[in-house]
Amino acid sequence: MPSEKKSIADFSCPVPVGLYSNIVMAHGGGGKLSHQLIEKMFLPAFGNPALESRHDGASLEMPSHKIAFTTDSYVVQPLFFPGGDIGSLAVNGTVNDLAMCGARPLYLTVGFILEEGLPMDTLWRVVQSMKSVARESGIEIVAGDTKVVERGKGDGIFINTAGIGALETKQPISPVHVRPGDAVLLSGDIGRHGITIMATREGFEFETDLESDCAALSGIVLGLLSEGVEVHCLRDLTRGGLASALVEIAEAAQHQIEIQEAKVPVPENVRGACEILGFDPIYLANEGRFIAFVPASESERAVEILRAHPLGKDACIIGSVMAGSPGLVTQRSRLGTSRIIDMISGEQMPRIC
Amino acid sequence: MPSEKKSIADFSCPVPVGLYSNIVMAHGGGGKLSHQLIEKMFLPAFGNPALESRHDGASLEMPSHKIAFTTDSYVVQPLFFPGGDIGSLAVNGTVNDLAMCGARPLYLTVGFILEEGLPMDTLWRVVQSMKSVARESGIEIVAGDTKVVERGKGDGIFINTAGIGALETKQPISPVHVRPGDAVLLSGDIGRHGITIMATREGFEFETDLESDCAALSGIVLGLLSEGVEVHCLRDLTRGGLASALVEIAEAAQHQIEIQEAKVPVPENVRGACEILGFDPIYLANEGRFIAFVPASESERAVEILRAHPLGKDACIIGSVMAGSPGLVTQRSRLGTSRIIDMISGEQMPRIC
Repeated sequence: MPSEKKSIADFSCPVPVGLYSNIVMAHGGGGKLSHQLIEKMFLPAFGNPALESRHDGASLEMPSHKIAFTTDSYVVQPLFFPGGDIGSLAVNGTVNDLAMCGARPLYLTVGFILEEGLPMDTLWRVVQSMKSVARESGIEIVAGDTKVVERGKGDGIFINTAGIGALETKQPISPVHVRPGDAVLLSGDIGRHGITIMATREGFEFETDLESDCAALSGIVLGLLSEGVEVHCLRDLTRGGLASALVEIAEAAQHQIEIQEAKVPVPENVRGACEILGFDPIYLANEGRFIAFVPASESERAVEILRAHPLGKDACIIGSVMAGSPGLVTQRSRLGTSRIIDMISGEQMPRIC
Repeated sequence: MPSEKKSIADFSCPVPVGLYSNIVMAHGGGGKLSHQLIEKMFLPAFGNPALESRHDGASLEMPSHKIAFTTDSYVVQPLFFPGGDIGSLAVNGTVNDLAMCGARPLYLTVGFILEEGLPMDTLWRVVQSMKSVARESGIEIVAGDTKVVERGKGDGIFINTAGIGALETKQPISPVHVRPGDAVLLSGDIGRHGITIMATREGFEFETDLESDCAALSGIVLGLLSEGVEVHCLRDLTRGGLASALVEIAEAAQHQIEIQEAKVPVPENVRGACEILGFDPIYLANEGRFIAFVPASESERAVEILRAHPLGKDACIIGSVMAGSPGLVTQRSRLGTSRIIDMISGEQMPRIC
């Protein structure tokens, strides 16, 4: 739903009175200024009983003994880009990793590493964005930490988030449960996040409507699970793109995966940018797309369920799992030829997330 | 138990064959080099079934519905110092925050933000240290993430850890449960970590035997709880020191806390350094000390229990909680005069943890 996304311009409420206009070292020192940042910035944005207990950690009641637990750090540059920012990325990214375990996202921790001199307004806008997307996906920010490093020892804002969720599946979801005969489903078109970041960073303007696919995938994934589809594995496509996700799963599952090039949806503006820049879209980063492995017999129904969700309207079957060569990923071209897909060995674009 | 601590020199096993000698951007790119770092560095060190599933998150079974969840980032400089390093700090710090909730530490996530050019051997030594201290406190590293930023955009290694633990107390432990009449217990002497970091950073040598108090506090805290002591609040003394911890708790509890200066143990070498540098030891950072609030009637027994543990041999009662002025912390001097203890407003020493 790119058109419904909030723009950073919407977070127009001003920085609270009494905060410095820039981050200074003492904001990470654990004294008065750290305290002020918590009281004026973080508690008003993220406030909930766990956070407000002002303790070293959050004491929580989980609905179940079976949980998922994950973490990611975010170092994306630029901090703001069409369709998102480092804050929405940091919340959605960890929400998505929980969803890929088949878990309902419940609680999030946030660790900021700030560079001395960072405009307070920049942090404020990032925090407001985190508040907004956390609310949308129903995850609560229950604990946090802020460190400050000297000017030139960081790069504006780095964010780490860690999340826990309640597992909502009976069968375990993981690469080792992928079976020959499984269909490979893709939830939507690929490459929007990678090309958007690159275009923003370099000042290119390929298309005016290009924006990141950054989104929380928990709704669409939990929908698929609640319909009783036998899901063997889920993986969101982040840095490394579709190609790296497939290779990692083929290697962990010790089966072969074959995908059909013609079945993988690539937006026209992403395809155009790739042609100009010599990129292969299957290596481009995404932040709101995932693949699912389901038995072939369930695949049509699963696609229908995905398509009923706004984030899955372009969902499709892109390939299948074969006994074949363990760990191999092949792509069949429009002409019927086959090529081996490998992980990228260098780096297509640094600091994409 | 400073004398029994492992020195970094003990982690003498070499960096595995096949890894680059320095971190390059592609180690954070999600492709082949990221994969290699996981396979050759992280899995051999931290390996367990959750991590080895190579999934986006760890699926875990908790012993109870009641959990604690916390996070901290670590940006300490220098990375290695007498008594610890950024790795042991990152594991013990989060273990300690869980312990302060009255939780048994169970699972940890680790997020590395590495600077391009970092010697691989430095990362290896930090990882070996994390492995070693995680094993000592019984916490499992179940998920992780690595990002790399360009040379000059980071500072060697930043680490975020997030931890979950199983709550082991019936009564909630938090600042709001502190009551007038409670005794304030301190687990040991203060200031070792702060002075050690400063001395290492500046090349001072006050005393040859000065080293950080960095330690996992879960054992001593769980011991106190298992003896049935009615613990109202626990807080480990980190950046901001004893003073900031007391002020934070007095404010959250809305009671007055009074401590006796003469009762607070300060090692001779720390006191000497403070006199030279003009520091007040109650503001110095610690990484292996905590305060506990217990009813006065339980305080003598609690001190005895703490003293039976090697990390609590200098435990003592340093003050008490009074109805008095809400949020006020006062210190009674050796001469009987009283002064107000406030949070530090600037920063005594940056990047202490």
